[in-house]
Amino acid sequence: MDLLPTSDRTRVTRLPYRQVHDRRVLHEILDAGLVAHVGVVRDGVPVVLPVGYTRDGDSLLLHGSTGGGLLRQAAAGAPVTVTVTLLDGLVYARSLFDSSMNYRCAMVIGTATPVTGAEKPAALRLLSEHLMPGRWVEVRQPTERELAATLVLRVPLAEASVKLRSAGAEGEPDDGESREVWAGVLPLRTAAGEPEPDPDVPAGVPVPASLDRARRRHLGA
Amino acid sequence: MDLLPTSDRTRVTRLPYRQVHDRRVLHEILDAGLVAHVGVVRDGVPVVLPVGYTRDGDSLLLHGSTGGGLLRQAAAGAPVTVTVTLLDGLVYARSLFDSSMNYRCAMVIGTATPVTGAEKPAALRLLSEHLMPGRWVEVRQPTERELAATLVLRVPLAEASVKLRSAGAEGEPDDGESREVWAGVLPLRTAAGEPEPDPDVPAGVPVPASLDRARRRHLGA
Repeated sequence: MDLLPTSDRTRVTRLPYRQVHDRRVLHEILDAGLVAHVGVVRDGVPVVLPVGYTRDGDSLLLHGSTGGGLLRQAAAGAPVTVTVTLLDGLVYARSLFDSSMNYRCAMVIGTATPVTGAEKPAALRLLSEHLMPGRWVEVRQPTERELAATLVLRVPLAEASVKLRSAGAEGEPDDGESREVWAGVLPLRTAAGEPEPDPDVPAGVPVPASLDRARRRHLGA
Repeated sequence: MDLLPTSDRTRVTRLPYRQVHDRRVLHEILDAGLVAHVGVVRDGVPVVLPVGYTRDGDSLLLHGSTGGGLLRQAAAGAPVTVTVTLLDGLVYARSLFDSSMNYRCAMVIGTATPVTGAEKPAALRLLSEHLMPGRWVEVRQPTERELAATLVLRVPLAEASVKLRSAGAEGEPDDGESREVWAGVLPLRTAAGEPEPDPDVPAGVPVPASLDRARRRHLGA
């Protein structure tokens, strides 16, 4: 097993048995999410906003406009935290105290490096393939002006923690709780609806293959 | 319209037309989410983790174990940021540059106050009614020991920003993009699956009404 290194910042103190040290699980969580919550510190206060991302091997790629303050600050070297949470279910225990959520959460702490030059279109392609798989080859390539207006940051997966809960309510035979109270899990997932074409799509232009791929991704397990 | 005050910290600089100042929209977003990403600063680095929450009038209630470092730090007066993001769709434009996501995001910055005494069970009931509507009356009441082991924090909605995108790809007739390329939105939402009873639920104990309420919430629009 490829183990994640643990630092004082990534060691889980509350319910440490929920911490997972397998790097493969970190990768699975990051590969399943679409939006990360990215935090930087501004004047001593955390700023936390959603950002589209992908994983590229042992680093994360974030992207946004060059006009956005959050990523600009991260690009300038501010410590950045990237958290991806997948909400998998509501856990109905026989008491509210033992009720919970099933979730998978990865928190990555690091310093970002701007991706530039020839690596930038390659990074944008990886981002595109994660967020809208198959779309890259359906549309024209980015222009120089568009590349210049897009900020791409790389954050290494050097300091990361993974915490998850994936179980039923886990009553114990001698817990004293009434068995007349139902216990179990309501699974939750992200689901896709029907594609909504813009009004300017000419009749006869079909829904592209990339949308079917995204729908399968979000309709599947 | 009840306007949100804007500070330098909550003023959106990137695409400011996406900022919304209507307090009603802030409330709608907070009422639709289940999990917030809560940030505090630890040794100059942001820590960002998911937390179950609810809205109580013009404040947020957060809850967790008294053993959790994040909320303990917020309870001690550290500046705290609470961000709720709802991902509503993937926007397939005719270029990757104009491709986007539809989302609604609320970021609240403030200082938390622990909820204690008689207000604590009332606050936990509000949290329960938000996360698992109807469950409170199906299970026994919390014990004193359980109340003591639960940390409940209140964060006022005094400093908050709302940003959203809710539109198609918005091509313009003269944008020069090929109309052979499909453009539109793939809607996304949180969906509930079939309830999964724990193995120790006796035969004949039905799925409770609260689960049906939660399923309707997550199956509905």
